[in-house]
Amino acid sequence: MTGKRTLAETEFDVQYMKKYGSLMAQGNGYLGMRAANEEAYTEQTRGLYIAGIYNKAGAGEASDLVNLPDLAGMRIKIDGTVFSLLDGEICYYRRQLDLSGGELRRQILWKNREGARFHLLFQRFVSKADLHVLASKVTITSLDKDAEVEVASGIDAQQTNFGRQHLAERAVRVFDEEVMMGSYETGESGHRIAAAAIFRCDKRAVRSFTAKNRQLLQTVKLKIEDGKPYEFEKISALYTSLDRDLEGQEPEEACVLKGREAAKAGYKALFAASSAEWQAFWQRKQVKIASRDPFDQFALDFALYHLEIMAPSHDERFSVGAKGLTGEGYKGHVFWDSEIFILPFHLFTEPETARKLLRYRYLKLEGAKGKAAQNGYEGALFPWESAFSGREETPEFAAINIRTGERQRVASPLAEHHIAADIAYATVQYYEATTDEAFMKKEGLALLKETARFWISRATDEGGRLSLKDVIGPDEYTEHVDNNAFTNHMAHYNVKQALRFMAQFGEEEEAFKRRAEDFLDRLYLPEADREGLIPQDDTFLSLPEIDLAKYKEHQGSQGILLDYSRKEVNDMQILKQADVVMLLYLFPDLVPPETALRNLEYYEYRTIHDSSLSKAIHAIVAVRCGQAESAYRFFQEACEIDLGPDPNSSDEGLHSAALGALWLVTVFGFANIRAGGGVLSLAPKLPEQWTELAFPLVYRGRRLELVLSHEKLSFTKLSGPSMRISVSGEEFLLEDRLEITTVQLEGK
Amino acid sequence: MTGKRTLAETEFDVQYMKKYGSLMAQGNGYLGMRAANEEAYTEQTRGLYIAGIYNKAGAGEASDLVNLPDLAGMRIKIDGTVFSLLDGEICYYRRQLDLSGGELRRQILWKNREGARFHLLFQRFVSKADLHVLASKVTITSLDKDAEVEVASGIDAQQTNFGRQHLAERAVRVFDEEVMMGSYETGESGHRIAAAAIFRCDKRAVRSFTAKNRQLLQTVKLKIEDGKPYEFEKISALYTSLDRDLEGQEPEEACVLKGREAAKAGYKALFAASSAEWQAFWQRKQVKIASRDPFDQFALDFALYHLEIMAPSHDERFSVGAKGLTGEGYKGHVFWDSEIFILPFHLFTEPETARKLLRYRYLKLEGAKGKAAQNGYEGALFPWESAFSGREETPEFAAINIRTGERQRVASPLAEHHIAADIAYATVQYYEATTDEAFMKKEGLALLKETARFWISRATDEGGRLSLKDVIGPDEYTEHVDNNAFTNHMAHYNVKQALRFMAQFGEEEEAFKRRAEDFLDRLYLPEADREGLIPQDDTFLSLPEIDLAKYKEHQGSQGILLDYSRKEVNDMQILKQADVVMLLYLFPDLVPPETALRNLEYYEYRTIHDSSLSKAIHAIVAVRCGQAESAYRFFQEACEIDLGPDPNSSDEGLHSAALGALWLVTVFGFANIRAGGGVLSLAPKLPEQWTELAFPLVYRGRRLELVLSHEKLSFTKLSGPSMRISVSGEEFLLEDRLEITTVQLEGK
Repeated sequence: MTGKRTLAETEFDVQYMKKYGSLMAQGNGYLGMRAANEEAYTEQTRGLYIAGIYNKAGAGEASDLVNLPDLAGMRIKIDGTVFSLLDGEICYYRRQLDLSGGELRRQILWKNREGARFHLLFQRFVSKADLHVLASKVTITSLDKDAEVEVASGIDAQQTNFGRQHLAERAVRVFDEEVMMGSYETGESGHRIAAAAIFRCDKRAVRSFTAKNRQLLQTVKLKIEDGKPYEFEKISALYTSLDRDLEGQEPEEACVLKGREAAKAGYKALFAASSAEWQAFWQRKQVKIASRDPFDQFALDFALYHLEIMAPSHDERFSVGAKGLTGEGYKGHVFWDSEIFILPFHLFTEPETARKLLRYRYLKLEGAKGKAAQNGYEGALFPWESAFSGREETPEFAAINIRTGERQRVASPLAEHHIAADIAYATVQYYEATTDEAFMKKEGLALLKETARFWISRATDEGGRLSLKDVIGPDEYTEHVDNNAFTNHMAHYNVKQALRFMAQFGEEEEAFKRRAEDFLDRLYLPEADREGLIPQDDTFLSLPEIDLAKYKEHQGSQGILLDYSRKEVNDMQILKQADVVMLLYLFPDLVPPETALRNLEYYEYRTIHDSSLSKAIHAIVAVRCGQAESAYRFFQEACEIDLGPDPNSSDEGLHSAALGALWLVTVFGFANIRAGGGVLSLAPKLPEQWTELAFPLVYRGRRLELVLSHEKLSFTKLSGPSMRISVSGEEFLLEDRLEITTVQLEGK
Repeated sequence: MTGKRTLAETEFDVQYMKKYGSLMAQGNGYLGMRAANEEAYTEQTRGLYIAGIYNKAGAGEASDLVNLPDLAGMRIKIDGTVFSLLDGEICYYRRQLDLSGGELRRQILWKNREGARFHLLFQRFVSKADLHVLASKVTITSLDKDAEVEVASGIDAQQTNFGRQHLAERAVRVFDEEVMMGSYETGESGHRIAAAAIFRCDKRAVRSFTAKNRQLLQTVKLKIEDGKPYEFEKISALYTSLDRDLEGQEPEEACVLKGREAAKAGYKALFAASSAEWQAFWQRKQVKIASRDPFDQFALDFALYHLEIMAPSHDERFSVGAKGLTGEGYKGHVFWDSEIFILPFHLFTEPETARKLLRYRYLKLEGAKGKAAQNGYEGALFPWESAFSGREETPEFAAINIRTGERQRVASPLAEHHIAADIAYATVQYYEATTDEAFMKKEGLALLKETARFWISRATDEGGRLSLKDVIGPDEYTEHVDNNAFTNHMAHYNVKQALRFMAQFGEEEEAFKRRAEDFLDRLYLPEADREGLIPQDDTFLSLPEIDLAKYKEHQGSQGILLDYSRKEVNDMQILKQADVVMLLYLFPDLVPPETALRNLEYYEYRTIHDSSLSKAIHAIVAVRCGQAESAYRFFQEACEIDLGPDPNSSDEGLHSAALGALWLVTVFGFANIRAGGGVLSLAPKLPEQWTELAFPLVYRGRRLELVLSHEKLSFTKLSGPSMRISVSGEEFLLEDRLEITTVQLEGK
């Protein structure tokens, strides 16, 4: 499925429809559109989403990222037959998403049942030049005869989130027998959404409009001549009441105005403007990998394309959902994935976006304080799943318990508290990479202090030692444990950093300081035992084990939950992802490399990797332990999470964190960069298969370009003052350009 | 598409999917299920409805007949391929609805892409023996090899009414790793619905359950042997909080209990019980037509099957929707169709059901009084569209105005007031056919009095003459007119009958009587003019005309509204259906036959027959005018409303009134029966194509069997006292059996 920055599907296969619907999704951070085909198929899920537009479909329901009225669907009739690839014969088929320019193209040579051939070219994009605009173009050529073509499309509000309705229709209108406009409102969250759609087509076409059953449709009919391409364009615009660029207009006015303006420009001009923005993006941010396997480069391009379209860099009131804007998995909610897996890419390429992602958490501090208070804690406990409100949004129930037949409650919001420390960690990481004092003094400090307060109040005194009891670490197959290694170390770091920055900014509160220091003194920090193992929690190492081979074969499917109840899984040494490996990733100096390796091996053996967050982190820790070969294997397997052959891997959207983690493996793993402590340091360990790795990096006001190979490392500073760089423990001064051979390094 | 009481589809054609989904719908008056295929297709609409379960999806929305969680859908995988008739090759296909026993069967010989052949037999029914039960059976035989079969099915609450969500999920459960149960609640109307589903299948099958995104599904997997049929049954039960037979149980308990009990019996036994009920139905109610064209008999059987499954004869709190329980057209609302077109079949075969339909109106009198009061009238004005609440349920908007682009408001609830008189007419008709004094004294009189009060207050004094201004007759292409002939005559009849029964039951109120008599004296009753034409209203005959040929060709499609706005249609002599013809049907003695014929011809020429109510009524009036040939043509065209070749005629459900009207044409048209005035009279005028017409009739406590031919008429009284019968003006005494030859009649 690869190509030169092109994701292609060369065979029509309904089995892969939902997957490609996610993989080939388009967007611009403001809106996201799944790559559902224009024509209808039962196996595909249409989806159009706008960042921040959530709604609860009813009391007791969790907020959904609202599936908006569809603008991409088209019903095409050729000589009276509804066009479908399940009918007639497909003589040629190719669908491709061009990552460089953001266009989705589908080219089909189709023979109807009567044997007449038609060439169809579908093109569409979501504008990167204007957040509110999307456009489609269809070119139909009849190859054997004159034909009657009918295209019906418009604004289709029959879409739901798996049967959950979020939008009430406020009005549908047609202006000047041309502009279709639909206005909708979410029930509970009270957002207004307005869409306009305009057809551009042959003047001779006969047009008619219908409005029925939540669909506003325009139908155009035309007799097309044998061999003469018939072009049809549909230009659409969307605004919501949340938009900050409404300039005093109502969303309804704004979308009609924008739609008219865009339709005047037409597909070609609109696409040129959008494509130029994509060129600039690749110019500034691409990671270049010279690998024996071109898939590595492709996977990184794919990851970066999606990291870009999922980031709401236009507005700090939103963050990145676990599936971005590519599907309804996890209801579009924001997890710790945003800070730990996705934020670093932005931090080191466009720090302003990272700042906004942290501002999102800052703006939701009230909700986090509320959650802490409700649970009897001080400070701020961020919700496990967050949306627009800032309140806890985790759904109440997960899967059916196979023994009792009852739905199982989701435990994460009750105990998966590490999210508070994850946000604190990202806050410090942001400061280290930017030295943004203004942010740190206000937002950063507030985040650190309130989360630190939470941890202090969360601890339990057990004979003088402080424990964090009844928590869930990142490994969700081990619920309700005491002293989870990841959680305890992160909480410790969180409180320590709060003290550090309070001191730095002269905001010391004596009472808090005393409590914090006591917490740091007395909190139990799980350390490597005699066998060199850091216990994941107080009981894990004593639990029984089973053979996981069967489940590891189908990793990512959570197939074990079809054989065992959650409770049963909980009581064995079975990991979804390895907390200790995660801990070693975030704290590379916690243990010596040989201890890290011991833990990596022990825990990986017991890990199914049912979490998409797992593989890439294992890759990074493996690199650092000198296991370049297994690191590369982990990396490639991580690339396959969405891009692999499993037809259902990505049905409900892409794995945003896993995509962010590919960048992490490259930069924090193989390039082995560290940005803490005031000096940018690196100790590259490229896999044998790679001859060169090049990437840009923004660090403390400098824009750098790094080119690393097995023979030499070269650094170019494109802007900003000179700086020190530590390479494999050796410090260098980077003025404008610096080249170091590995021989040189080994020599030292 | 005909056969011996069998509706068959012999070719798989997606174009006809929605149509057959309606035509082959099954039900029992309590619940109705569309004939959507087990496997998914984009072109089909699934639908499961329970009489009376309506809900508004939001403020400002009209009540929908709620599309309940689906129980019929199945996802079948054979050797890893999802079974679909759009994939592989169809070697044999036949789907049929057996009207005699109520079973839907689909037999398919299917070859997958690899060339392996499979025989699939799908069977299902909705029980007529137990209102709460429905059952499916699938038999799969692999013909060329052993194969892996996987069936996934359950309770799927992703269904909506065109994107409008009505149900909140209360709970989903699996009991004993066997019984799936889903409990749901409507948002606004607050009804609770619970469904249970149980699989019966090979013990060796591996089962698993999932509950996600509003679907509770069970998957069974089995290796099937070459040539050995694999049988799979799914037995389901439904209860709602409205049910009167809950016997103190909650719907959740009741459906699980019923489901277990039914599953124990199994498909075969359940079907035998249901089928026996259908045999009894045909025994008692079939109309038998010996015609040159067997389609006539089939069409009547089809009509009776559907009249039976659409009638909620179990509960008087509901009536019959314009589409029965076969689809979401008109949102499942109840119109005047129920009383004027559907009620007579029940009245003359099972008067108890007719009584319940009138009781429905009686129970909603408060709503009707409320509507009258809100509009400044006295008495009771029944809503144009009625559902469970008894309040006006007509949606606010209809189609887009093609000139202004705005949606047009629906005028009927504001002015289509004849419904009040229609209910009064049916009330009198009920009494005439039953002499049910108890009903008439209480419910009947209340209905007559309150509707009469409405009419009296509705009239406008114009220089001494009373007018009914600004009304809409049945012809909805002529809105907001004065003195609509149909309305004025019906109102007059309504008030007259109110006086009659008040006198009969000694319930005279002096003040009312005075006002009523004055109304009867002074109400303007449009009569035939010099040309013999009864003017449809004050202005109609003076309006301009256009050539309607183009629109008559596509009658039923309302295609004229794509070329003209409603306002423009209003201002021309264009009829959707002819009010004067309707008037002549209800009052056969209003004018002499030649005047009737003059009016029939004049108005028919100007009628597009865009209303499905039109054709059959024209047939009846034509018979009575001695136009047997054109009557038969109208009759056959009326049969085609749902059964004709138009693939989209019945997408959103069947035309209930048109089906009722087929029975009317037979009994009130060709048999030319009249039941008013205390004597059953008839003057049969069979079409040339028919050699015999036989049907049962219940009249004033007698159960009769009539057999009519061109040569003789025979009457058999199966029960009840002897009676007089008037045949073509001649009176006879019917003791047990009576035979009259036409020679005898002509001789007299």
